[in-house]
Amino acid sequence: MIWIVGSGTCRGQTTERAKEIIERAEVIYGSRRALELAGVVDDSRARILRSFKGDEIRRIMEEGREREVAVISTGDPMVAGLGRVLREIAEDVEIKIEPAISSVQVALARLKVDLSEVAVVDCHAKDFDAELTELLKYRHLLILADSHFPLERLGKRRVVLLENLCMEGERIREGNADSIELESDYTIIFVEREVME
Amino acid sequence: MIWIVGSGTCRGQTTERAKEIIERAEVIYGSRRALELAGVVDDSRARILRSFKGDEIRRIMEEGREREVAVISTGDPMVAGLGRVLREIAEDVEIKIEPAISSVQVALARLKVDLSEVAVVDCHAKDFDAELTELLKYRHLLILADSHFPLERLGKRRVVLLENLCMEGERIREGNADSIELESDYTIIFVEREVME
Repeated sequence: MIWIVGSGTCRGQTTERAKEIIERAEVIYGSRRALELAGVVDDSRARILRSFKGDEIRRIMEEGREREVAVISTGDPMVAGLGRVLREIAEDVEIKIEPAISSVQVALARLKVDLSEVAVVDCHAKDFDAELTELLKYRHLLILADSHFPLERLGKRRVVLLENLCMEGERIREGNADSIELESDYTIIFVEREVME
Repeated sequence: MIWIVGSGTCRGQTTERAKEIIERAEVIYGSRRALELAGVVDDSRARILRSFKGDEIRRIMEEGREREVAVISTGDPMVAGLGRVLREIAEDVEIKIEPAISSVQVALARLKVDLSEVAVVDCHAKDFDAELTELLKYRHLLILADSHFPLERLGKRRVVLLENLCMEGERIREGNADSIELESDYTIIFVEREVME
């Protein structure tokens, strides 16, 4: 049995439900940040995951057939998270997912924008996608990006950059996409929907 | 000062951060369900809100100028929630928002679908919107609906209905939109993206 448990994005966002699941686990995996947020980085059951690539994940799957395993995901496992990776690999082991507060929600709270007004786009380690400008007809965009994202391809559009939310160096800046520079690998880019004439 | 605090969707999903904010408040507003989820329905500071209409909200705004007010919103305040209502009314009082786990995230965890693969559509007490079928070119849809939503207008499409998540009578059903019937006012409808030829 494998539980994929979100740690939340900011300190103090791990829920009681998540804590109970982690408490029951025989072994706990996660990045250092995920384990820290969940308050178990010094727990004897905790093991720091350095990669979320196929081999490592398959080994954890194997372990989940015999033991109660908790894998902690920063933010929410189903927001550009681990949940999807596991869905693609999952074989014959039971996987359950416990949601948590994602950086998307922290961004929406700061912007005072509702989730039903945006489309969330995961551009971490991905190239610019023409679909982005199509989606702008219907929704504001919240683009999850690293510092390599080609922001200039959004042209002169006004953007809000939410950087390092709930981490050291948190900052919110505004500017035009073709002149402002990305500086963080943990950036959420807000682009306002284009009202059609 | 007004804090809009999410209670989460299921029991045990209120975060420590939310509890601390509620603890500091001089007065606490919310629907009965929101106050119950946050564990403060019997607190002497708690007042049950029966409506989220203009007059009631304006009175709370007024109060927020003098006192520390917490308004508890079921789920996340920025997911078809109170946050947007307040944004539209807000005058010269400081409003802060504390996110929480929404029914959308509970649905994504059950479906094992990522937020970046869907568009969330708020159709509570709203009519069918032609935009829905447009969005299906780009994303799966997660439609927040009540039992009056005209599901048949989605035609023969396969849908998954997630009803009463984390409430009494929770149920997940599948069927074709033109033949399955909505039975709950707390339904999330999942419609798969249309892959273009």
